Amino acid sequence: MKETILLGHGSGGKLSHELIKNLFVKYFDNAILKQQTDAALLQLNRTKIAFTTDSYVIDPVFFPGGNIGKLAVCGTVNDISVSGAKPLYISAAFIIEEGFPLTDLEKIVSAMADEAKKAGVLIVTGDTKVVSKGQCDKVFINTAGIGVHEEKYCEIGLGVKIKTGDKIIINGSIADHGMAIMAVRNFGNFEADIKSDCASLNGLIQKILNTGSRINFMRDATRGGMATVLCELAEQLKLGVEIEEFRVPVNENVRGMCELLGFDPFYVANEGKVILVVHPDDAELVLETMKLHELGKDASIIGEIVEAHPSKAILNTGIGGKRIIDMLAGEQLPRIC
Amino acid sequence: MKETILLGHGSGGKLSHELIKNLFVKYFDNAILKQQTDAALLQLNRTKIAFTTDSYVIDPVFFPGGNIGKLAVCGTVNDISVSGAKPLYISAAFIIEEGFPLTDLEKIVSAMADEAKKAGVLIVTGDTKVVSKGQCDKVFINTAGIGVHEEKYCEIGLGVKIKTGDKIIINGSIADHGMAIMAVRNFGNFEADIKSDCASLNGLIQKILNTGSRINFMRDATRGGMATVLCELAEQLKLGVEIEEFRVPVNENVRGMCELLGFDPFYVANEGKVILVVHPDDAELVLETMKLHELGKDASIIGEIVEAHPSKAILNTGIGGKRIIDMLAGEQLPRIC
Repeated sequence: MKETILLGHGSGGKLSHELIKNLFVKYFDNAILKQQTDAALLQLNRTKIAFTTDSYVIDPVFFPGGNIGKLAVCGTVNDISVSGAKPLYISAAFIIEEGFPLTDLEKIVSAMADEAKKAGVLIVTGDTKVVSKGQCDKVFINTAGIGVHEEKYCEIGLGVKIKTGDKIIINGSIADHGMAIMAVRNFGNFEADIKSDCASLNGLIQKILNTGSRINFMRDATRGGMATVLCELAEQLKLGVEIEEFRVPVNENVRGMCELLGFDPFYVANEGKVILVVHPDDAELVLETMKLHELGKDASIIGEIVEAHPSKAILNTGIGGKRIIDMLAGEQLPRIC
Repeated sequence: MKETILLGHGSGGKLSHELIKNLFVKYFDNAILKQQTDAALLQLNRTKIAFTTDSYVIDPVFFPGGNIGKLAVCGTVNDISVSGAKPLYISAAFIIEEGFPLTDLEKIVSAMADEAKKAGVLIVTGDTKVVSKGQCDKVFINTAGIGVHEEKYCEIGLGVKIKTGDKIIINGSIADHGMAIMAVRNFGNFEADIKSDCASLNGLIQKILNTGSRINFMRDATRGGMATVLCELAEQLKLGVEIEEFRVPVNENVRGMCELLGFDPFYVANEGKVILVVHPDDAELVLETMKLHELGKDASIIGEIVEAHPSKAILNTGIGGKRIIDMLAGEQLPRIC
């Protein structure tokens, strides 16, 4: 381990994984945490539940397509939803810098309330801490969430049923959230016309599950981008992941902004994107179902699980080449969520 | 509402209550949140659970009797335990300042692991965010927790069974945590020989419940001190609360430090103190049971619920006078937890 905490330890990439393995999993040592899914699968009496937490430190607090409050609800709703559970209850804990405008706090809280209503979850418990000016930057929000599992879906987050030949599907364009934030940071407010994809995915996911299709894995691609999910997947499965670059939806203005600022969209954060691994016979039905939903209209089958190159995710590039999709090494975009 | 966030909004006192009522409860508007207990009482299929969250921003991070990690586990274990539930699972979310020493983080994480083991809870999910130097102060930790209720105890946190004549019991001396922190802040490390009372109370509480006594209410006295719990209790019940000052245990060195620095120990934070309201016929049994436990050996019956002065908590002072125990107005000790 490095001797001090670096920004990269919060990137969701290599250093984050090291920190989790060498510190948190080592000390907190238990079988549930070791599964390292975004939402823990817990048994309470006869009920199986999903339990997750995330802190949000995004800067700026307000951005095109949302604010830190909306993001905090969507993020936790999504972590529970991709585990296969139905999100029900959310906690909201605020750390606020002294002097933060109450009108801004009200906008944030109001956005949380709106998003919770939309997603059909209740915010049932909370906490407020205030620190002196300069001891935190504006406002940080933590949300934890609880969802209830149906027995048949409770292992989706673990990916235990994935097999060679399964199709990999994404519900739409990548890198919108990260580039919306970068556009604001670099060029001021709302000028680049790129909007965060920040959204609660539980409605879409419920529709997909309702088809009865064999959904063998889901994960939302947030910090570290789509690439990180694919790397984690390949490593965990000891199978190969193969992605067709031309099938991955990227909005033109987002691609342009990525080129301008030197980012690879595969590594840029999303906040409303889910990657699914689906039995090949069910992939078309899933795709069509997704396309009928507002949050899945640009869905695409982007690749599949293969026997070749185990533990590696490979990108077939548009020009006929192949390259390894590696895990994010440093920190690309601090405070992106 | 004031126009900007003040330190007092995080005090646990009057301004906190205003903010919760006028902002969070107003927007998040649901019956569960409105109960305003530290742990929400939720129904998941046929299982009743307690769900709570707290962020910890304590400064200094290391203090006599514990550190921010130990505190984060104890605090959440206690919020669940006083609701009458058995704490089982905890989440841990870190916001870390870039440059924070990894050895310090390891000490914190190790203390969390130790305390979780001691309290019999598992840390099952987590999150790590890193912010640039100067954007937070060292490290903030959020823990959320889940506990399972037995039907017969699930309303303890609501206090619906409290009646006139019920005895008020505390498990030991007050103000230790707050004054330990103030001693370190004012006089440097460990010199005043005052230790935080930071401890997980679930073991003690389980022993009390096992007696079969009629425990009509429990709450841990943290931010805002014992006074805040008593005020909240009186207001909520529309009954009177009467406390005998000489029965409230205060350690001599803590009393001295309070006088020196101008604090009223009734308003100073605790992190291992529970206030119980017990049927008068069961109070002696509860007291004796508590005294046999390490964390209850200085337990004391400090007062009772009365018909007189409804919605007010009154202190009978040592010198024969009476004074109203009012809610904390401003912020006494920022970043005390």
